Amino acid sequence: MVEKTKRILTGDRPTGKLHLGHYVGSLQNRVKLQYDYDTFLIIADVQALTTNFEKPEKLSKNVRQVAKDYLAVGIDPDKTTIFVQSLVPEIAELTVFYSMIVTVNQLRHNPTIKSEAEQYGYNDMTYGFLGYPVSQAADITFCKADLVPVGSDQLPHVEQTRRIARKFNQLYAPVFPEPEALISDFPRLVGLDGENKMSKSLGNAIYLADNAEEVGQKIMQAKTDPARIRKDDPGHPEVCTVYEYHKAFNTEEAADIEEMCCAGTIGCVACKKNLAAKINKLLKPTRQKRQKYEENEQLLDEILLAGTKKARDIAQDTMAEVREAMQLDYFSV
Amino acid sequence: MVEKTKRILTGDRPTGKLHLGHYVGSLQNRVKLQYDYDTFLIIADVQALTTNFEKPEKLSKNVRQVAKDYLAVGIDPDKTTIFVQSLVPEIAELTVFYSMIVTVNQLRHNPTIKSEAEQYGYNDMTYGFLGYPVSQAADITFCKADLVPVGSDQLPHVEQTRRIARKFNQLYAPVFPEPEALISDFPRLVGLDGENKMSKSLGNAIYLADNAEEVGQKIMQAKTDPARIRKDDPGHPEVCTVYEYHKAFNTEEAADIEEMCCAGTIGCVACKKNLAAKINKLLKPTRQKRQKYEENEQLLDEILLAGTKKARDIAQDTMAEVREAMQLDYFSV
Repeated sequence: MVEKTKRILTGDRPTGKLHLGHYVGSLQNRVKLQYDYDTFLIIADVQALTTNFEKPEKLSKNVRQVAKDYLAVGIDPDKTTIFVQSLVPEIAELTVFYSMIVTVNQLRHNPTIKSEAEQYGYNDMTYGFLGYPVSQAADITFCKADLVPVGSDQLPHVEQTRRIARKFNQLYAPVFPEPEALISDFPRLVGLDGENKMSKSLGNAIYLADNAEEVGQKIMQAKTDPARIRKDDPGHPEVCTVYEYHKAFNTEEAADIEEMCCAGTIGCVACKKNLAAKINKLLKPTRQKRQKYEENEQLLDEILLAGTKKARDIAQDTMAEVREAMQLDYFSV
Repeated sequence: MVEKTKRILTGDRPTGKLHLGHYVGSLQNRVKLQYDYDTFLIIADVQALTTNFEKPEKLSKNVRQVAKDYLAVGIDPDKTTIFVQSLVPEIAELTVFYSMIVTVNQLRHNPTIKSEAEQYGYNDMTYGFLGYPVSQAADITFCKADLVPVGSDQLPHVEQTRRIARKFNQLYAPVFPEPEALISDFPRLVGLDGENKMSKSLGNAIYLADNAEEVGQKIMQAKTDPARIRKDDPGHPEVCTVYEYHKAFNTEEAADIEEMCCAGTIGCVACKKNLAAKINKLLKPTRQKRQKYEENEQLLDEILLAGTKKARDIAQDTMAEVREAMQLDYFSV
């Protein structure tokens, strides 16, 4: 008996270009997953408004940028459905229905919401920010996703979605599967400053869209062992950003490099050049694929609109089920 | 110069048949207003879910019931656009956008929300209940209503809508008029029990759909002056429910009846029969109009669907403006 391919929902808020941190933390994994799962990839522009309502123009610029990053790293539009959240209004409808079966306290006590509100310095958070896990539940369930790849910090959101799906099914009719978390705790990639995780807002990122020269320059500025003055001083790879990157992007040589660094037999400049070459090798096919879409924005739009249409068709079918379950299907329109 | 006819948005949650309290409190006024204003009448089934999510089947039954009540009392579908909220998904989209520009504290401190939460005994209110003023702002603004007829207790909601419209216009572009309240403080009609306001849930109501016999029987049971034992005892009209109804539905004779009651020259039975006759006279054309729709549900549905289509067309135009203002119009779809 052939089992139905399980469906995955995952995605990003289009708030900026994607970088190597995204590559290591999620993109690489998604490229693999698409061969085994029916993957839906949401460009969550409406959710991005929760923290960008004062500058929505940021999203306009980045919706296509993020899509290009996806395609460049190897997301295959024949395998993965890439779609734009704001173009699927059924998600807003489902969000409004779900808002009736989630309590304010459930949301206020969500540890992720709490810590994010702190991080953004929100004393007086918006109604939309408090409720983004409700909107996320709609993202995940409108396409009846079975699995959601998340880091452990996002587990409360998947749990919230499960609660909503369960409550809906109990109150009305069994429409939704309870999605499961596919825990993917990849180590956070450190930024070029060696202090914080790689992040657009901290200016310590190597972008997937950077060219070879930019990558080389950025790596040259990466924080290394401050105790190492001359190139034959013995180094401390455990405090070196460049060594961190070797472990992530040059796994074959990482052990040798560690040894040579400790022995003071490889200098930082040579070590950095080697790393830059490895990262550029990794990004070479990415750059070629990106080039294709840079030269043909029409093609990019076609992919996004086809994915969005597929998502919408599914969303409309789900909403018909939802209305029937809630007995809101008064008219046969 | 001809001024553009101002638009009004008003409506009801379809949670039950409408009664004389609604007639006195809003319907009568709406019938008059439709000749001077472009009136939009929302059957707010999604908003009704905020307090009925556990029994949505109640709404299915009452959407058409409320529509029949509207048409029966003289709402003219050629003048008034009657539409069903859940069939205008753009309202949900607009609600989600608005949720980004309203803070949780603004909603928590809304006095109407506070007192209603108390009334319903909500310790742990749902996210949708807390946010129904946001959804209401979307109802009012999607059609760019200029005026909202409300009682003073609903003023905080109109104020909330004005704040949202103002904030949207400031942040993005001037899309929405700031709607004004059209204060219509009609006295609350007391119920047959003489103690509470007329209300479906208290079983003290005379429904617009009641037939002549039912009206007669209900009036016979209405609470009168308990101190009046014999029919020639002097009565106290100021504590008599029947006298209240004379003032509302038999204005011409009310003063005479007061006098006769005080003098003990009219008995309660005669007084009640007179009132029942007056109410039945008032409801006669209402019953005839209702009959037409009872016999032809097809016609009723056509009116509702035509009104909904008109509302949706307007909603789609507004959402196109909203997306343009927010720069979310990435694709020319």
